[in-house]
Amino acid sequence: MLTAKDPQTGRRSMGLHRLQVKGSRRLGIHLANPPISRFAAKAEENNRPLDVAISLGVHPILLLASIVSSPIEDKVAIAGSLLGSRLALTKCETSDVDVPAHAEVVIEGKVLPKLREPEGPFGETSGYYFSDQSHVIEVTAITHRKNPILQALHPTSQEVALLCGPAGEAEIVQMLREKGFAVEDLALSAPSGRTHVAVSLKKRHDSDPKQLLHFLLAGVPYIKHAVVMDDDVNVQDPGDVEWAIATRVQGDEDLIVIPNLRARSIDPSKKAGMFTAKVGIDATVPVAERHRFKRIGVPSAIKQGVAKRLAAIISPALAGR
Amino acid sequence: MLTAKDPQTGRRSMGLHRLQVKGSRRLGIHLANPPISRFAAKAEENNRPLDVAISLGVHPILLLASIVSSPIEDKVAIAGSLLGSRLALTKCETSDVDVPAHAEVVIEGKVLPKLREPEGPFGETSGYYFSDQSHVIEVTAITHRKNPILQALHPTSQEVALLCGPAGEAEIVQMLREKGFAVEDLALSAPSGRTHVAVSLKKRHDSDPKQLLHFLLAGVPYIKHAVVMDDDVNVQDPGDVEWAIATRVQGDEDLIVIPNLRARSIDPSKKAGMFTAKVGIDATVPVAERHRFKRIGVPSAIKQGVAKRLAAIISPALAGR
Amino acid sequence: MLTAKDPQTGRRSMGLHRLQVKGSRRLGIHLANPPISRFAAKAEENNRPLDVAISLGVHPILLLASIVSSPIEDKVAIAGSLLGSRLALTKCETSDVDVPAHAEVVIEGKVLPKLREPEGPFGETSGYYFSDQSHVIEVTAITHRKNPILQALHPTSQEVALLCGPAGEAEIVQMLREKGFAVEDLALSAPSGRTHVAVSLKKRHDSDPKQLLHFLLAGVPYIKHAVVMDDDVNVQDPGDVEWAIATRVQGDEDLIVIPNLRARSIDPSKKAGMFTAKVGIDATVPVAERHRFKRIGVPSAIKQGVAKRLAAIISPALAGR
Amino acid sequence: MLTAKDPQTGRRSMGLHRLQVKGSRRLGIHLANPPISRFAAKAEENNRPLDVAISLGVHPILLLASIVSSPIEDKVAIAGSLLGSRLALTKCETSDVDVPAHAEVVIEGKVLPKLREPEGPFGETSGYYFSDQSHVIEVTAITHRKNPILQALHPTSQEVALLCGPAGEAEIVQMLREKGFAVEDLALSAPSGRTHVAVSLKKRHDSDPKQLLHFLLAGVPYIKHAVVMDDDVNVQDPGDVEWAIATRVQGDEDLIVIPNLRARSIDPSKKAGMFTAKVGIDATVPVAERHRFKRIGVPSAIKQGVAKRLAAIISPALAGR
Amino acid sequence: MLTAKDPQTGRRSMGLHRLQVKGSRRLGIHLANPPISRFAAKAEENNRPLDVAISLGVHPILLLASIVSSPIEDKVAIAGSLLGSRLALTKCETSDVDVPAHAEVVIEGKVLPKLREPEGPFGETSGYYFSDQSHVIEVTAITHRKNPILQALHPTSQEVALLCGPAGEAEIVQMLREKGFAVEDLALSAPSGRTHVAVSLKKRHDSDPKQLLHFLLAGVPYIKHAVVMDDDVNVQDPGDVEWAIATRVQGDEDLIVIPNLRARSIDPSKKAGMFTAKVGIDATVPVAERHRFKRIGVPSAIKQGVAKRLAAIISPALAGR
Amino acid sequence: MLTAKDPQTGRRSMGLHRLQVKGSRRLGIHLANPPISRFAAKAEENNRPLDVAISLGVHPILLLASIVSSPIEDKVAIAGSLLGSRLALTKCETSDVDVPAHAEVVIEGKVLPKLREPEGPFGETSGYYFSDQSHVIEVTAITHRKNPILQALHPTSQEVALLCGPAGEAEIVQMLREKGFAVEDLALSAPSGRTHVAVSLKKRHDSDPKQLLHFLLAGVPYIKHAVVMDDDVNVQDPGDVEWAIATRVQGDEDLIVIPNLRARSIDPSKKAGMFTAKVGIDATVPVAERHRFKRIGVPSAIKQGVAKRLAAIISPALAGR
Repeated sequence: MLTAKDPQTGRRSMGLHRLQVKGSRRLGIHLANPPISRFAAKAEENNRPLDVAISLGVHPILLLASIVSSPIEDKVAIAGSLLGSRLALTKCETSDVDVPAHAEVVIEGKVLPKLREPEGPFGETSGYYFSDQSHVIEVTAITHRKNPILQALHPTSQEVALLCGPAGEAEIVQMLREKGFAVEDLALSAPSGRTHVAVSLKKRHDSDPKQLLHFLLAGVPYIKHAVVMDDDVNVQDPGDVEWAIATRVQGDEDLIVIPNLRARSIDPSKKAGMFTAKVGIDATVPVAERHRFKRIGVPSAIKQGVAKRLAAIISPALAGR
Repeated sequence: MLTAKDPQTGRRSMGLHRLQVKGSRRLGIHLANPPISRFAAKAEENNRPLDVAISLGVHPILLLASIVSSPIEDKVAIAGSLLGSRLALTKCETSDVDVPAHAEVVIEGKVLPKLREPEGPFGETSGYYFSDQSHVIEVTAITHRKNPILQALHPTSQEVALLCGPAGEAEIVQMLREKGFAVEDLALSAPSGRTHVAVSLKKRHDSDPKQLLHFLLAGVPYIKHAVVMDDDVNVQDPGDVEWAIATRVQGDEDLIVIPNLRARSIDPSKKAGMFTAKVGIDATVPVAERHRFKRIGVPSAIKQGVAKRLAAIISPALAGR
Repeated sequence: MLTAKDPQTGRRSMGLHRLQVKGSRRLGIHLANPPISRFAAKAEENNRPLDVAISLGVHPILLLASIVSSPIEDKVAIAGSLLGSRLALTKCETSDVDVPAHAEVVIEGKVLPKLREPEGPFGETSGYYFSDQSHVIEVTAITHRKNPILQALHPTSQEVALLCGPAGEAEIVQMLREKGFAVEDLALSAPSGRTHVAVSLKKRHDSDPKQLLHFLLAGVPYIKHAVVMDDDVNVQDPGDVEWAIATRVQGDEDLIVIPNLRARSIDPSKKAGMFTAKVGIDATVPVAERHRFKRIGVPSAIKQGVAKRLAAIISPALAGR
Repeated sequence: MLTAKDPQTGRRSMGLHRLQVKGSRRLGIHLANPPISRFAAKAEENNRPLDVAISLGVHPILLLASIVSSPIEDKVAIAGSLLGSRLALTKCETSDVDVPAHAEVVIEGKVLPKLREPEGPFGETSGYYFSDQSHVIEVTAITHRKNPILQALHPTSQEVALLCGPAGEAEIVQMLREKGFAVEDLALSAPSGRTHVAVSLKKRHDSDPKQLLHFLLAGVPYIKHAVVMDDDVNVQDPGDVEWAIATRVQGDEDLIVIPNLRARSIDPSKKAGMFTAKVGIDATVPVAERHRFKRIGVPSAIKQGVAKRLAAIISPALAGR
Repeated sequence: MLTAKDPQTGRRSMGLHRLQVKGSRRLGIHLANPPISRFAAKAEENNRPLDVAISLGVHPILLLASIVSSPIEDKVAIAGSLLGSRLALTKCETSDVDVPAHAEVVIEGKVLPKLREPEGPFGETSGYYFSDQSHVIEVTAITHRKNPILQALHPTSQEVALLCGPAGEAEIVQMLREKGFAVEDLALSAPSGRTHVAVSLKKRHDSDPKQLLHFLLAGVPYIKHAVVMDDDVNVQDPGDVEWAIATRVQGDEDLIVIPNLRARSIDPSKKAGMFTAKVGIDATVPVAERHRFKRIGVPSAIKQGVAKRLAAIISPALAGR
Repeated sequence: MLTAKDPQTGRRSMGLHRLQVKGSRRLGIHLANPPISRFAAKAEENNRPLDVAISLGVHPILLLASIVSSPIEDKVAIAGSLLGSRLALTKCETSDVDVPAHAEVVIEGKVLPKLREPEGPFGETSGYYFSDQSHVIEVTAITHRKNPILQALHPTSQEVALLCGPAGEAEIVQMLREKGFAVEDLALSAPSGRTHVAVSLKKRHDSDPKQLLHFLLAGVPYIKHAVVMDDDVNVQDPGDVEWAIATRVQGDEDLIVIPNLRARSIDPSKKAGMFTAKVGIDATVPVAERHRFKRIGVPSAIKQGVAKRLAAIISPALAGR
């Protein structure tokens, strides 16, 4: 977890960035996401280093706060709000930034201006090794508690999925509801590295799903494939999603292919010039045809009757055991 | 399990067909698949009934033999070959057909010519209720063992999936390998009602997957959506398939949409005139780009080292227990 | 200008709605836009009328406030903020709503529940006559100043264009900038009834314009056709926009056609089921080709030299006049 | 204005060609259009120079005659016919061509064979600077009147638009009418450099506009984008054209994109190999839907009544002034 | 062969039209082509009959003249020009028209205004039976030579093909050459009913064939499918054309499909609303790839050598016979 | 005709392969087809030569057997079966293979491992010259009858067409019928080099032709273009096929274009990476429209009447001769 300040406004913020040990006092760092990527760019414009500190072994809520994308750039404040109390900070020794008071290890240093070096290959959330030309940190000090305990984040592990998934899902649901879409539920799939999304919708008009898909694929950069379903489908169950695609899609009418959008840098299938194609699937039933799509199920009256009879058989048996 | 004879050649065969009790001596029967649908059609041309017998409570291998699609129409012979011994048969009392000697219940009757009645709605493998205009059987006799035990087949249950899946997969793999495709593995997905298929392939040329997809979608009537992957993907793991689609597909180049093919009657999304569109996905890596698609994994040397160290730690601990 | 209260929360708001005189105490009203359309729907659910008041001859800033689409539903507050002072309100005599204190005429009444009557045809902003099944107001009182002066709004007049244009443009610019698009300028065209939009952009990547167009066409319901240009084009000058389309577009690569989105009710070309197709045009120069697209112009040094010489010639001449 | 003779037939003709001063006796000349480009090619085949003369300061009708594309190659005759009297000519002193007797300046010379030199960049009618490998004229003599007065033609000025527009419009209208299209009016737009054309049509069948667009885009090399409208739209008013596109087009049915046609050399967006895509828009109302597209307007009876009343009010007022 | 006069201008013309005997003094007539269809329409506007005469047994050149489509409407003059001498005419007895003096049979009558009756079915050039609502002629007189000899024209016979083919081919070649296309040869195919055309071209630019195909398919109403080839292909040999399509076409780049053009009335595959789709095939070799497309052939030196040797062997043998 | 043995199994087989004389003891050989291409590959894996023998002047049935593609690899057995008697073989002198006992000339040798040399250009069945990097045979012995007589096969001659055509047609018909398509007749066209196929079908459902075309184009590598027709069309008559395409196809619905399939090596239009596009044409009449497509013909009753009358006229005339 990296902390730094905006060189212009002095406002502090936090972020999660990939590091690589490159020598006893030298770290590679992958600055691909705002706000700290912006701080570094501003410092570089004036040919100045950017003071940073890396805190290891922090409260998990700080990780969550670091990755929320929000108009509020002060992620320390977001962390405080999630914690329910102000986040205790402390000054660094050699670097002009604050760090969480309870971090187990703090590495202080400066991001050097106008310097890029090969970094990686690291395993990325896409499931592939990924290299890039990245920034370099010169380490100025390391402080730590006695016998410090660290949490390592492996990009393809469940930990990242659990950490990033809910934040992203909540953001997208809010964005869609603000535009008037009656979203019922939404799931980013873990195996896809959170690039696949399944949405269930109380559809009012047959144009709703197509409009939602275009808005979503153009509006959320990291989503590549999306499927929209009616609200009788459980988006949390991949089998249910597959069933909807199998029985409610006609590929020549319900697929939307959008070429030439902007790709994620870690997608190995991206095209020259950072382009990607995205695909949307409308797996909803036409409003006028809903009567033809009655899902098999046991009526609740019968379910209750069966439960009663089973109870009548099983309970005495159990009692007699 | 229905048995009947070809009215022209006298050759017997078997099939699994949906029945509906319509009165004390009257059954509805859905004759949608050969060979018995053909026997009924031939009898009907001469305006004659078709003698049939329904055997309930039979060896499961007979069910498997009934649904194999094969140029060999004599499914009794197929059953014998699967059993490893000739299938014991016995004559019916009122109907000119043979039935398995060990059936628990046998219902004898005739499919009436030139008569169709509404049948259903029944839950079908597509997951929806489905009705049709179907044939009618006039029951002529019922014989059974004492305290007969039946196996009921529920169309959306795992039982059907386990029964039908492997037979279909084996047939398709053979068809593809005969055409020279180096198929590695193949899976029909259960939640889709076996209309989705995932294939892994040792791809030689970049045109292999597209050619395979066109051949498969046009050649296998019940497949609606298919995806082809390289052989480093496990087609039995839906998460692995999703990962391949997420990271190896560009929707404007790798999707094949084929409109106007023939739909399955139980697909509720089918279009007027029994048409359907089918979709194929090429999720393989271009031959020339394979070096860029190195999957994250732990090298086997390291895996073994870790295993050794763990053993060194764990074994003494266990020994001391 | 209509005022009403939310039947649930009691919060007041305002809106501009089309009226038709249908009798001495009866008005037709076209309630197609929130929030008052929502208030009426809520009242109707409980089978109750909605008290409303129509204020004619009000401060023009109130009209502007009425049509702003904003998450803040209290448009009286918006009007106050635009006026720079609290809007003076007064109670109605027969209707439970407040009206601007200085209105020239106030018509009080109730929107009747579960009643729709044919309304129109009226000339609409699309330039065509348009009819609909609309709500009905029962008038309960009319109050007015002596010799009241009214402002009539003609839907196809410049007045509506001047009133609605800037509000819509500001909203869209903000929406695009929040998504990170470096929008330079934006113009809704008056002859198209504000359904055509021209956007100029400081393009960073070649995928920016396509992503913007998809986001805009799916995100803004009333926009039908959109064109994106580089920031050397003046979006306020239709000739300049046409020049960019003529010299920077290749129709097979730069046109985006999105079928099956939701149409505006007043678009006479809309398809059955309220669908419409929308079109986006990317009239920007590829980043790598900018050097080839140097616009003709007179260098500023020469312009100044010419100005000097003209001054040297003209000034004495004028002086001698 | 250049004059020359066909080296084979001796027939004279005229043309407008771009010149560049390259030395005291050397001019660059851009020979891209027939007939003089053909004369130069014929002379070059025999490795001979082509005698030419450039006349500056001539009757404007000669400019118009020079640019008409006509099967009649003798543009001197065309000029005479436009003037209503035979064009007076005079022999050159050093070059074997005739020039208009009243030209203010005449530059005589020879186009050199098998020589091309870089020429430009000049601002072209496309609005961009444009360079090419062009022919060279060796100047042999210059004659002129005393205090000669010249007309300079600036390619992006209104002068060129006024000069070239009507000639092109008349040619296209004739070509379309000969094919049986009931063209009502037609306008080449000035800001597009006359590459955009708007056509109004008395449409008889719904296939007329599409057939016209294909014929026009393939038949007229310099037209890139074309729109066809019904005859209630004024093609001379860009706002009216935009209104028709906004309210009568469904982009998935009414757009025609033709890739791989031949591009104009001065179009900076042209693709490698001189290809271009062209686009046609059918903005007509389907014949069967005309009743739904009634344009807003004031009935003429009412217009006259208003005019009368206004006259009754205004005239006395004016009289009393 | 029908003759009539323009009711407005009095100018006579001729045409070939399908007739059906409907009674002793009543003929059905199919007036689908100008100029006589126009004459009848003009007469009908004034609610007047159109005097006509049908000449049977005439000089074949008159048939050819009748079907030429030309801006010169006076087909009598065209016939004269083809004959090389003025066509001798004679007045009718009961009808105000002239007929060829040497016709074997002349049927005089009037096309009745505002009357249409079912006509046909007749076998048409499309190879199908075709019916229509057609005009009716009231016969006023029949004159004939002794033992008259007639030529019957069967629409699907070689006679029609030989008659209509060359006229159509010449017209299209001229139209294309006027537009600057270097057409080498052109063939309308007989089995297609002259709706298929094969064109060979000295291609200069790769865009030539596509531009030609669009111009041809939109400009010639009766052409449905067209193929363009290089000039090393013999368009008169269907096998050669097929070979070019087999070895020089890539279907995803070289096929042009134009939907929604106007259909011929006798095409049974036409869509509702008289629409048709047309297809063009570019079977030319890309200019830059010509070296790869060297056709197999025997070099002429070897051919001559073989001829000599054969002669040396055969001649003495023949001589000795 | 080449004979060789599988280096693993020792099973013999035969094939037709292109040879080039490269020296007194050296032949180039084009090994593009199994099984002998596979034998050579296996030998090469072990870095060993493959013994082969070339037999010239053999029974034509052996040529046919050589080119049949069949799961039965032993083409000697196929030849025997076609001959109706066992094929007499004899051992070679220097090469470990058998050859037909009656061959006129036998060339014995070895295909050298890991050696490829430029071969050709030869005229190929595509009608073009074709070169490749090919294997080399070192000749070890030549044996022959006295005055041996050879049959030379010219790739573009009728001989190859007659030889290869029927074998291919029979294979494809069988493949289609096994899939349930009611194929009536099928023709590979000679001028296309057997890459064009015309199929006639007793169509049951409108989806049959599209399904057949996809199956055929993906399943038969050498077919590039295919057309399906109803069974009233004679696929052996190119004019009949053209007529069906002219009158039963709508290009926007009935054309299937499949890009990115695998090309034949001898197709000069193939794309980089050995890709090709294939095209299918559905020229069948929609089932519901068959009544509108009645082909012109003379009813058989009339035909017989005419025949009788002609006989009555002609026979006496002939008798009197």
